This record gives sequence, structure tokens and C-alpha cells, in this order.
Amino acid sequence: MRPLVGVIMGSKSDWETLRHAAETLEALGIPHEVRVISAHRTPDLMAEYAKTAKERGLLVIIAGAGGAAHLPGMTAAHTPLPVLGVPVESQALKGLDSLLSIVQMPAGVPVGTLAIGKAGAVNAALLAASIVGLSHPEVMERLVAYRKAQTEAVLAHPDPREEG
Amino acid sequence: MRPLVGVIMGSKSDWETLRHAAETLEALGIPHEVRVISAHRTPDLMAEYAKTAKERGLLVIIAGAGGAAHLPGMTAAHTPLPVLGVPVESQALKGLDSLLSIVQMPAGVPVGTLAIGKAGAVNAALLAASIVGLSHPEVMERLVAYRKAQTEAVLAHPDPREEG
Amino acid sequence: MRPLVGVIMGSKSDWETLRHAAETLEALGIPHEVRVISAHRTPDLMAEYAKTAKERGLLVIIAGAGGAAHLPGMTAAHTPLPVLGVPVESQALKGLDSLLSIVQMPAGVPVGTLAIGKAGAVNAALLAASIVGLSHPEVMERLVAYRKAQTEAVLAHPDPREEG
Amino acid sequence: MRPLVGVIMGSKSDWETLRHAAETLEALGIPHEVRVISAHRTPDLMAEYAKTAKERGLLVIIAGAGGAAHLPGMTAAHTPLPVLGVPVESQALKGLDSLLSIVQMPAGVPVGTLAIGKAGAVNAALLAASIVGLSHPEVMERLVAYRKAQTEAVLAHPDPREEG
Amino acid sequence: MRPLVGVIMGSKSDWETLRHAAETLEALGIPHEVRVISAHRTPDLMAEYAKTAKERGLLVIIAGAGGAAHLPGMTAAHTPLPVLGVPVESQALKGLDSLLSIVQMPAGVPVGTLAIGKAGAVNAALLAASIVGLSHPEVMERLVAYRKAQTEAVLAHPDPREEG
Amino acid sequence: MRPLVGVIMGSKSDWETLRHAAETLEALGIPHEVRVISAHRTPDLMAEYAKTAKERGLLVIIAGAGGAAHLPGMTAAHTPLPVLGVPVESQALKGLDSLLSIVQMPAGVPVGTLAIGKAGAVNAALLAASIVGLSHPEVMERLVAYRKAQTEAVLAHPDPREEG
Amino acid sequence: MRPLVGVIMGSKSDWETLRHAAETLEALGIPHEVRVISAHRTPDLMAEYAKTAKERGLLVIIAGAGGAAHLPGMTAAHTPLPVLGVPVESQALKGLDSLLSIVQMPAGVPVGTLAIGKAGAVNAALLAASIVGLSHPEVMERLVAYRKAQTEAVLAHPDPREEG
Amino acid sequence: MRPLVGVIMGSKSDWETLRHAAETLEALGIPHEVRVISAHRTPDLMAEYAKTAKERGLLVIIAGAGGAAHLPGMTAAHTPLPVLGVPVESQALKGLDSLLSIVQMPAGVPVGTLAIGKAGAVNAALLAASIVGLSHPEVMERLVAYRKAQTEAVLAHPDPREEG
Repeated sequence: MRPLVGVIMGSKSDWETLRHAAETLEALGIPHEVRVISAHRTPDLMAEYAKTAKERGLLVIIAGAGGAAHLPGMTAAHTPLPVLGVPVESQALKGLDSLLSIVQMPAGVPVGTLAIGKAGAVNAALLAASIVGLSHPEVMERLVAYRKAQTEAVLAHPDPREEG
Repeated sequence: MRPLVGVIMGSKSDWETLRHAAETLEALGIPHEVRVISAHRTPDLMAEYAKTAKERGLLVIIAGAGGAAHLPGMTAAHTPLPVLGVPVESQALKGLDSLLSIVQMPAGVPVGTLAIGKAGAVNAALLAASIVGLSHPEVMERLVAYRKAQTEAVLAHPDPREEG
Repeated sequence: MRPLVGVIMGSKSDWETLRHAAETLEALGIPHEVRVISAHRTPDLMAEYAKTAKERGLLVIIAGAGGAAHLPGMTAAHTPLPVLGVPVESQALKGLDSLLSIVQMPAGVPVGTLAIGKAGAVNAALLAASIVGLSHPEVMERLVAYRKAQTEAVLAHPDPREEG
Repeated sequence: MRPLVGVIMGSKSDWETLRHAAETLEALGIPHEVRVISAHRTPDLMAEYAKTAKERGLLVIIAGAGGAAHLPGMTAAHTPLPVLGVPVESQALKGLDSLLSIVQMPAGVPVGTLAIGKAGAVNAALLAASIVGLSHPEVMERLVAYRKAQTEAVLAHPDPREEG
Repeated sequence: MRPLVGVIMGSKSDWETLRHAAETLEALGIPHEVRVISAHRTPDLMAEYAKTAKERGLLVIIAGAGGAAHLPGMTAAHTPLPVLGVPVESQALKGLDSLLSIVQMPAGVPVGTLAIGKAGAVNAALLAASIVGLSHPEVMERLVAYRKAQTEAVLAHPDPREEG
Repeated sequence: MRPLVGVIMGSKSDWETLRHAAETLEALGIPHEVRVISAHRTPDLMAEYAKTAKERGLLVIIAGAGGAAHLPGMTAAHTPLPVLGVPVESQALKGLDSLLSIVQMPAGVPVGTLAIGKAGAVNAALLAASIVGLSHPEVMERLVAYRKAQTEAVLAHPDPREEG
Repeated sequence: MRPLVGVIMGSKSDWETLRHAAETLEALGIPHEVRVISAHRTPDLMAEYAKTAKERGLLVIIAGAGGAAHLPGMTAAHTPLPVLGVPVESQALKGLDSLLSIVQMPAGVPVGTLAIGKAGAVNAALLAASIVGLSHPEVMERLVAYRKAQTEAVLAHPDPREEG
Repeated sequence: MRPLVGVIMGSKSDWETLRHAAETLEALGIPHEVRVISAHRTPDLMAEYAKTAKERGLLVIIAGAGGAAHLPGMTAAHTPLPVLGVPVESQALKGLDSLLSIVQMPAGVPVGTLAIGKAGAVNAALLAASIVGLSHPEVMERLVAYRKAQTEAVLAHPDPREEG
């Protein structure tokens, strides 16, 4: 099935974070592709990937990177598709650098930024589902069910002292 | 025309920032509504607004707030629609508090966060256009034209020393 | 005995921090209840919990959460009772995000915020005791004794090089 | 009428911030006293003030200070009464130093900390009202009315573009 | 005379900062060109500029940008020439975002980063002079003279209380 | 021998840091005393200790504490002796809170602040030696020898790749 | 009269801050000298100044600088005298860079660091007085009187609402 | 072969970071020397090293240090050669102090600063290669090949889920 969401990351080591985006898309039954694309080491590939994303049928791009994270913003520079950015937790500054490098885009080219690390990766997939769901009702239904399930999981276990 | 995008903000003073979202939506011909809704002072209204947004035909909600900015995240808690957050620059901490309060959402409920202040407001509108454009080709076309125009504006004035 | 203090937290993983609040309330003989309530995943439950807290006889609510921590502030939005916030240490930003999301509330809805992590949880219980103690003299007495004991513990061991 | 709340501050220049606490207490009809007391320049007065606060009938102390702000924490060290801290915005670090110096108290001596600056001062008074209101129903009623009025003020002016 | 140094910036508003680089290059008699090139709004131009810089005879590129500043790093991705980055002071975060977005480059593609703002712009020119001077002895001589003059200016006015 | 330097700390757990101050004083042959004194849990002891320090023959007080670290500043409030502050590394904020709570003293009561953690503890002892050495030439001589030895240690091992 | 304290600063523009150190020394009758000495532009002068300070009769050196502030630490590297550092408020980062550059000295070479800006300059002079006062009783007396006067000034004006 | 690049560091413990600079220079066949030189403990050696660097044939100096890192800036104060600074990750503040101490140099004496830690060390070597390569074509060729190889390494492994 043709992918609707592209999940790209600046280096293979980012997969530990971005896998949570892929797994969440999987859980929601959203076709997607995953790819290592480096803004700095493969800038031409990145430009090509972003420029052709729309014609290839992608609806959303999720881009994760750490440190001076330029992948989300530069991808957004080359496509009118919605780009969601996941700041990967960096070694020294714990992702504060990643976050600011992604979210503080100047007016003109937006990146919808999520939280640093795993939570951000999960949420990028959920936000992608919200967007895809606008034109794919079955995705919206699955998203609503996913959210209902997580509500019920909290309601079912109100006591934090309970085992497990 | 029925609004496709809701622009909400925590207090009237946030309008100075969020007006840039509304003006950009206007420029792109995207029907929208604007409203002051406070997560803290009118929590029931907020819940109601978010819960009914989808059935009222909204596709995207842009929510801006400053300080301990809970409006975007709490709106997202009540709707499966994509919610975009604009951190308003705060007095003492210059929007760092607003940014972290919006972007650092736990896994399960996403907010696509933009830059602090005016740039973030403009970009929230552009990202909303990307999303709306997926199902409204004429919006996507206007977005592409908008982006092309801003590219040409840079190309036309390569010399920073030139007047104006 | 009817609880006087409610201890709520955004997720079960916050119990590792909030247990120190519960244990301190226990040590001071203050009846209390503990509950997992998520601002984002169970917003309606949260509103209900907060709105009915006063009539159920609670005097103080202690709310702990991490990251974009909205639970304390949103609880305060739904009740005139004093709400005390405990910022849970987060993975990437070490609780700075939790702290700012809780303490930087706009004028109108206050949260009395304590330190990040375990010390904040203990102190939330002690501050709750100060408040409860205003109308429950036996609690104030136990608080005074607790504080006297900790003073004496320091005085009894002035030499940091001593074993134990 | 005997004051129920003491509002103290480290220097006269802090009055510009703390006046908002006093004015809010005034609006809620809560008898209070205001006083300049410096932890560093008048440490003995501070100790005396805090030690006698309870017997003098105070129920809550609001303490504001900036920079290495020791007044709230040291006041709390000398009294079992609830102490609320207001970080005053400092010149260079914009109150981040004030905030951390007040909120990061070690386990054993709590300070319920509010936001930096004016919002924190208003909220300290509102939180004091919550506390006083537990034993003074007429204060609780006025607080509920105050909060209802601010909710209605938002509901009455939903359009941010409206004049005034 | 063919330029040896290229001074580029993300938007015309950055000229207020980068002009200090140009003026310092001027003072040192180093031929240079200045150009507005946006990583986000004109990514193809940026790639082209960087890829052809070496063959056009440039020895060093000075790139300045603010916020999520991608221009220096992306320029470096497209050329083996030394790239020097100048973080422009941003509105909300005062250039901390610009600094981290430029300096925290992952291993593989370096940007020699200078201080935020005017000092960084002057120093980018001086560092460019150090580099150019390695193969252009007359530039090294002028740099040495420039540095000697600034040393003498301090020595000539040891008393800070003196007029002027 | 009567102690010339007092080394105090807010809790026994700070000894792991402050022991480096004591060991350095030991190495320099400077008589000293060590004591756990808590600004928050034993404020009266602290005041007494500081007020009598001068008459007891102390020349310098080294005070270490973490988090909302009030011990150095409050000690300085009670004595005209030089007080040196050592910010102990805290759990969540890594000593940034300790540092700001100590160094940002308002005009009127100074604390000479050293680096966070072990380096700061060693340096507090060395700075105390500089001060004591002004009136005790044998201490100044030992300090000069200590500094000379550390210079020679660097000079003797210029190659970082060498074993050991 | 031979100066006992040297007040040095990295550039003439730092005088606006350091003048408060000089004025406070003046008020306390402590002979001192003031001098612009730049660690970066006049490193040899700085080394010479520091190396000869002791033999010239100085007891304490107060060094102020901003940004990457190396003057205090490098002065301390060349003298066993106590060196006190004043972080000057910088343009972009408001003195946080100055503070960290001064206070975070590695073990071996201490700088007693004061607050950012004017308060730090005043306090550097007061701490210098504490140190000088150990061997100059008349200075210690004047310091005690100065501190007593500031205590009385607070006590005389307890009401912050009073005019003037 | 005479070294073209000097790699210096403030203490032996910095070698764990700076070795990545040395190894990268090695990989690029650039003759270099490595040396422990402390700005604070061996300031005269540092001055001597920097002053004689040019006449000894060095083209670039790479200087790494942590905390209040003065080595890069002070080296730059004594030579017109390009100096590249590597902020070593520090214990408490994770290299933020090192970064600001190196990058925020005042106008007049530049340090080209790289990322905190290992990435910065690798990149300092690559930037040194860019600079050396301007006058040594064989170095530029090897740098271009090195960069091409890293591009191909990314292209060869596009799938982050692949083993190894």
C-alpha cells in the first residue's frame, strides 16, 4: 500500500526515538515509509525527497533529528506538505538544542514541533493521524478508538499503588 | 462561509500575537473564526468548544497562550482534530515558559507547536493551510503561490544594503 | 475517616515521586486519598474531581505531573480550594518544563508550587499540613512536633564525618 | 481589624510587584498588613516577625523577594504557618534566579511558590484567600464570586478584535 | 577585485548585525561580497551558492541567521570551504536559539561559530582574515596591525573615568 | 589549635562535596572546623554560629548548600567576616539553582561564590588560604608552593596520551 | 596613600558597572586604584599587573568583565592574592555568560564571584572590605558601621507605601 | 613532518574528548601535535605556546577546555592564527558553561567555536582541514573524499531498521 506518511531521521541512531513514531503509525494502520536522510551529509537527497513527496502521495512528513537539527526545517523548505518535527534528545544539552533548532523557524516555513524524545515521536504519529484522518475517515475512527482506549486505561486503574 | 480553522487565545492581550495567524489565514482565503477562550478562567467553555469543533466543521484549531500555557494542550485533550500551539512571548521569561508548557506534551495527546510570538502565529496559519490544503486543492494552490512569492521576494532583493 | 487532602497525579509513573507526599501525610496523621487522574487523557474526570472536591470535604489538593504539566493548573481552574503543585522530574529537561508549566500560572488561578521531585512532594504534604492545621489544631501540633524533630536531628549530629 | 495575612517584601522596590497582592486582598476584604523586611539586612527582625506571626493571629504570610531571594524560605524556617512566595522579576536574569531561590526548598520547610512578578502577586493573594476561606466562609464566598466574575468577563467579550 | 569572502544572511533584517562583518573586512582590505540568501525561503539558491563558492574563488563564507538558524550549517553541507556562523540576536530568546542552532552541528559538517550579535559579526571577519592571511601575507600583516592598534588603544586609556 | 576557617554545610549529604574543602585546608595546614548547620531546619543555630564567628577567632566561613541554598547568604547576613559559598550539585537542576541562590545576593551582603561541586569546594579552600595568608605569611607561602606544584604537575606531563 | 585594592575591568564600558565598586570602596575609606585591562586585547599587561600586584601592596583584586569574561580567572592565574569577580551584564545573554565564565573555574585557581551587574560590584567592594578588615581594624569598623546603617535604614521605613 | 595544527587542552582529562580531533586529523593525513596546556595553571606556557605558534609553522590551533574555559580565548589573544575552540562537556552544567565561555568572545579576538564534546572535536579537525586545505590542495582533496565517503555511507544504508 502506498505510504501516506514519511518518517525520516538524520542518522541511524535516531531510530531508537523515531521507532515510536513508526510503531504508533503501525498501530493506527497508517501506511508509511521510514528512511535515514541527513540534512548535512545528504542535502541533495533531502531536497529531492521533500520536493517529490507530494507527487509520490505522501500527506505528512515526520522528521526527527538532534543537536543543530536542520532536517525538519529544511524538509519544510522544499515542500508545501505539513512537516512535523521530533527533537531527539542530545548528549550534552538533552534536546534543548534540538528543540530550539526545530521549533524556532522564522515566519514563512512552519514545522509543527512535538516534545523531545519518545513522547514526541509517539505524538508526531498521533498528530499525523489527526491530519490524515481529515480525508481518511477510517483513520480518524481508529484514532478516536486509540484515544478512547488510553482514557479507559487510566480510568481502569485509578490507584497508583496497585501492582503492575 | 463556514470556518475551517478556529483561532483561540487565552486572553485578549494575546490578540497582538494571534492576529498574525488570522491575517495570514485571511491572505490565504481560509475561512476561520477567532475567539478568546481561557483554559483557566473558562475551562468549561474550552471543553465545550473543543468537543464540538469537529461536528461544527472545523478542520484545525490554532491555540495561543503565554506563561503556563495550558490552552493548546487542554484543547487537544478534548478533540481528535489537529491542534497547533502558538507560545505567546511572556513578560519575564520571554516565552520559554509558554513554549515548554505547550510543546512538552506527554505521549497520547499531541500539539504541533510553532515558534514563540509573531513568527509562530504566521507559521501556525501556514501549517493549517498545509493541512486544509490536503483536502482543499484551491487552498494548497494558494499556499504554493504564497510560498513562491516569498521566495521571489528574496531573490528580487539580494543586496541587503539596498534601500527599503 | 473522610480524607482532607487529595493527592492526584498525571500518570502511575508519577507515584514514585508523589508517594513521598502520601507518606508524609501519613506520618502527620492527615486522612487523604490518592488517585491517578490525567489532565490530558481523562479531562472530564479531572474536571469532575476538582468541581466536587470541596463538597466531598477535601481542604487541599496536591497535584503532581511532569513535562507540559497541566494537571495542577487545570484542577485549580475548577475549584476554589487551595491547590499545591509538585513538578515531577522529566526525562529530558529534568523537570524545568514541569516547573514552569505549573508555577507560571496567569493572574486569576493560583497553584502553590513546590520543588521539583521528591523534596517537593514531601513539602507539598507539609504545606498541606500547615493549611489543614489552621482549622485542625491537632494537625498543627503534629506539624510543629515534626519540625522540632527535624531540627533536633540536625542538632544531634553536627559532625558530617560521623558514621551513619 | 486584626490582620489575617502578612505581606512582606525584601525591599521597598518590591512594592511595585507586591502591591498587587495587597490590592487583591483588599478587593477580597481580607485584613492584612504590609511590611518591608529584609532577610539579609534585617535578619533578626525577620526571625522575630516569623516566630510571632502565629500568636499575633496571622494565618498566612506572603513573602516577595528578588535575586537570591531568601525571605520566603527563611520566614518559613521560623513558622509553621503557610508561607507563599512571590519571585520578583530581577534585572539581569528576569526572575529566574528569584524563582529558583524560592521554589527549590529542600524537604522539610515548604514555600508555596507563585509565578514571577505581578501575576504571582495577584495569585498569592488568591491562594491566601483559598486558605483563609477554609475557616472564614465569607472569604470563601467572596473568592468564589471573584472567580465567577473573571469567568464572566471572558465570556462577555469573546471577540479579541472588539474595542477596549 | 574578485571577492575572497562571501557574507550571506538569512534576511535583510540581519544586515544590521552582519554589516559589522562587512565593515571589518573593508577595514582589513579583504575583497568580499554580501548577499541575502535564505535557507528556508530560497533553499535552491543557497545550495547553488555554496556549491559554486569554491570555484568562484571564495576562500571563506560568513553566514549569519537568527532563531532556528539553518543557513550556516546548510551552507557548510554544500561546500568544503570553511564556514563561519554568526548567531543573530532573536526577539524572544535573545539569540540563544540562534547560537545552539548554529554551533551544535553533528560530527561531519563543521561551522566555526562566533558570539551572538555584533561582536560575533566583527569576529567572523577577523577570523576570516586569519584564514585568508595564511595564504595572503598582506592580509595577515593588516590583521596584525589591526590587533596591535586595538591593544594600543587600551594601553593609551587606562583610566575608565577619563572623558570620551 | 584554634580554627581559622569554619566549614559549614546544610546537610550531611553535602559532606561528599565539602570534604574537598576540608581536605584542601588540611593540605595547606590551615586549622579549621566542620559542622552541619541548616539555614532552614536550624535557623537559630545558624544565626548564633555566624554572630559569634568573629569573636571565636574565625577569619573566613565556607558555606555549602544545594537547591534553594540560603546558608551562605544568611550566614553572611549575620557576620562581617568574608563568607565563601559553594553551590552543591542538586538532583534535578544540577546545581544551577544552588548557584543562582548563592551568587545573586542583593547589594549589601556579599557571598564570594565558587564553582558548582567539588571544584568549587577545593577553590573555596584555596581562596580562604589567600585571605588567611594576607595576615599569616606561612599560609601564603604554603599556598604559593601548592600553586607552584600544580603548575609543575602540568609541565611534567605535557602529553595527554601518556599512561597514568 | 598606597592602594590596597585594585579594581580592573575589561573595557571602558564596564566602568558603568564597576564604578559602584569604586564608590563603595571610597565610602569605606579603602585606598584603591582603577584600571582598564583587557585579558584579550592586553594579555601581557594583565599578566604583569597580576604578577606584581602583591609586591605593590595590593591585598585584593576586583575584576569585572562581560561575555566570555576571562579577566578575573586569568588574573587569578597570575597571583596568589584573593581575586573577586564581577560579571558584567551582557547584551544578549544578560550576564549569564559572564557569570558562568567567571564562577565555573576549575579546581586550582579560585575566583570569588559576586552577582551580575551593579549589586555584584557593590558587593565585591564589601567583600574586599571584609578581607582587608581582617588586618585593618579601622576598615572592619567602618564595614560594621556601614552594615548597621543599612539595617537601620530598613528598620526606619517599614512601610513600603510611604513616600520617597 | 612539521605539524600544521596544534591540538591543546586544559587538562589530561580533556583528552577523552580531544582525541577525536587528533584521530580525525590523522585520518586526513594532517601533521599535528598534541599538548596539555592549562590557561590557569600554566598561563606563561600558554602565552609562549601561542606567541610562537606562527613562527613554528602552525597554521591552526585547536583548543579544548571545560567549565570556565579560557584556553581557546586566551590562546587567540596571543596569536593571529585561526583558533578553533572545543567546549568539553562539564560535570554539572553539561558543557553549557564551556560553550558560553568560549563562544561569547568580545569583538577583537575571535574563536571559531564548535559543538560541545566529541562532535565538536571531530568538527574542529574538519574545519582545520578546510583551512589548511586552502593552501594544501592534497588536504582539500582528502577532505572532499572524506565528506563524499560519509555521504555515501548514509546513502548506502537508508533503512534505519537494518542490522549493524
